[in-house]
Amino acid sequence: MKKIVVIGATGTLGQAVVRELKARHEVIEVGARRGAHRVDSTDPASVEQLFSQIGQVDGVVTATGKVYFGPLPEMTIEQFRKGLDDKLMGQVNVVMAALRYVNDGGSFTLTSGILADEPIREGVSATTVNLALEGFVRGAAIELPRGIRINLVSPTVLSEAMDSYAPYFRGFEPVSAQRAALAYLRSVEGAQTGRVYRVGY
Amino acid sequence: MKKIVVIGATGTLGQAVVRELKARHEVIEVGARRGAHRVDSTDPASVEQLFSQIGQVDGVVTATGKVYFGPLPEMTIEQFRKGLDDKLMGQVNVVMAALRYVNDGGSFTLTSGILADEPIREGVSATTVNLALEGFVRGAAIELPRGIRINLVSPTVLSEAMDSYAPYFRGFEPVSAQRAALAYLRSVEGAQTGRVYRVGY
Ligand SMILES: NC(=O)c1ccc[n+]([C@@H]2O[C@H](COP(=O)([O-])OP(=O)(O)OC[C@H]3O[C@@H](n4cnc5c(N)ncnc54)[C@H](OP(=O)(O)O)[C@@H]3O)[C@@H](O)[C@H]2O)c1
Ligand SMILES: NC(=O)c1ccc[n+]([C@@H]2O[C@H](COP(=O)([O-])OP(=O)(O)OC[C@H]3O[C@@H](n4cnc5c(N)ncnc54)[C@H](OP(=O)(O)O)[C@@H]3O)[C@@H](O)[C@H]2O)c1
Repeated sequence: MKKIVVIGATGTLGQAVVRELKARHEVIEVGARRGAHRVDSTDPASVEQLFSQIGQVDGVVTATGKVYFGPLPEMTIEQFRKGLDDKLMGQVNVVMAALRYVNDGGSFTLTSGILADEPIREGVSATTVNLALEGFVRGAAIELPRGIRINLVSPTVLSEAMDSYAPYFRGFEPVSAQRAALAYLRSVEGAQTGRVYRVGY
Repeated sequence: MKKIVVIGATGTLGQAVVRELKARHEVIEVGARRGAHRVDSTDPASVEQLFSQIGQVDGVVTATGKVYFGPLPEMTIEQFRKGLDDKLMGQVNVVMAALRYVNDGGSFTLTSGILADEPIREGVSATTVNLALEGFVRGAAIELPRGIRINLVSPTVLSEAMDSYAPYFRGFEPVSAQRAALAYLRSVEGAQTGRVYRVGY
C-alpha cells in the first residue's frame, strides 16, 4: 500500500483515477474548490503549503489543466498563454514543490491528452502544452534523484466529456474515464520512467 | 526571389541562414542589439512595430531563444519559465503578430534543437520548450490561412558553439551552422508544412 496524492481528484478524470487507486492504496484527494484538501496548483506557494500539510508521500498524480481553444488567427497572446500558465505550469509547479516530499522510489504521473499527437482546429494551444508536458517528463525522467520516476498519461477524449467536446472530436473514438485511469496505475505501480502512456489511440 | 525576414540574423545560426538565403532572396536582417533592424521578440508590441515598418513579406525565419540550464532539483520556477518566455513565446509572438504581414503561400520557419529528442542533464527546460515548439508548429500547420506554411528546424549542437557547450554534449557530433542553415532553405523554398527538419541526428 502506497500513499498517493491525486491533484484534480474531483474532476472527470481524477475521480476515476481515485477510484482505481483506492483498491490498493491510501489516496489523498485534492481539488481546487472541492475535495478533502484544496490547492491552486498554478501558485507555487499554494502547492508548497499543501505538501507541508500532507507530508511525505509515495506518489503524486496530477489530473488538472485548462487550455484556451479558439482559431489561431484570432487568438491573443494572453489566451495562448493560459494553457502554459495553467495546464503546463500547474503540473510543473507540483513536481518542483513536491519533489522533496516524495519518498525514495516514488513517482509522479502527469496528464496531457491526444491533441499532442492529433492536432485539431482551434487546438494550437492544447497541442503546444501537451507536447511541452511530454518534453518536461522526458527531461525530468533522467534527472530525478533517489529513484523517483515520472510518466505522462495522454488519453483520447473521454466519453464523460463528449457532451461538451464532441464538436471538436468528430470521428474520435472516446474512452471511459475508468479505462484512462488504468494508465495511472501502470505508472504508479509499474517500474518505467519517462514514458508516455497513450490511452485509446 | 522572395522577401524573407530573419529574426536572430546576427546570431551563430542566424548568420549562416542569412548567408544561404541571400543567394536567391531579399533578406531583411533583424537582431536584438545588432543588425539593420532591431526587435525584442519577447515583447509582442515590439514585434508588431517591426512588421509595421517592414510591411508585407514572403517568409519569416526565427533563430532566437534563450533557455536556462541547471539541475532540475535546484531549478526555480522563474528559471524554468525563462525558456517559455524567451525561446517559446519569442517565436510564438512573431507568428501571431507577423501573420497578417505574410503574403499568401508564404512561410514561417522556427528553431528548436536536438534536446527535444535527446534529453541531457540540466536540460529539462530546453527539452520542454523544444517540444512545445514542435507542438505549436504541429497545431498551427493545419490552421494557418491563405496557404501559409510553418515548419521547425531542430539542429544538433553547432560546431561554432562547442567552445561553450561541449561539456553538455559529450559524444554528440556537431554540425556546422552552414549545414544547419540548409534546412531553413528546405522550409522556405519547399512545399511542406508542419514538418520538423532534424539536422545532424
Ligand atoms: N476530459 C477529457 O476528455 C480529457 C481527455 C484527455 C485529457 N484530459 C486532460 O485531463 C485533465 C483533467 O481533465 P478533466 O476533464 O478531468 O477536468 P475537470 O473535470 O474540469 O477537472 C479538473 C480538476 O482539476 C481541479 N482543478 C482545477 N483548477 C485547479 C487548480 N488551479 N489547482 C488545482 N486543481 C485544480 C478541479 O478541482 P475542482 O473540482 O475543485 O474545481 C478538478 O478536480 C486536463 O488536463 C485535461 O486536458 C481530459
Ligand atoms: N548554437 C547551437 O549549437 C544551437 C543548436 C541547436 C539549436 N540552437 C538554437 O538556435 C537558436 C539560436 O541560437 P544561436 O546559438 O544562434 O544564438 P546566438 O548566437 O546567441 O544568437 C541569438 C540571436 O537572437 C537575437 N536575439 C536575442 N534576443 C532576442 C530578442 N529578445 N528578440 C529578438 N532577437 C533576439 C540575437 O540578436 P543580437 O545579436 O542583436 O543580440 C541574435 O541574432 C536558439 O533557439 C538555440 O537554442 C542553437
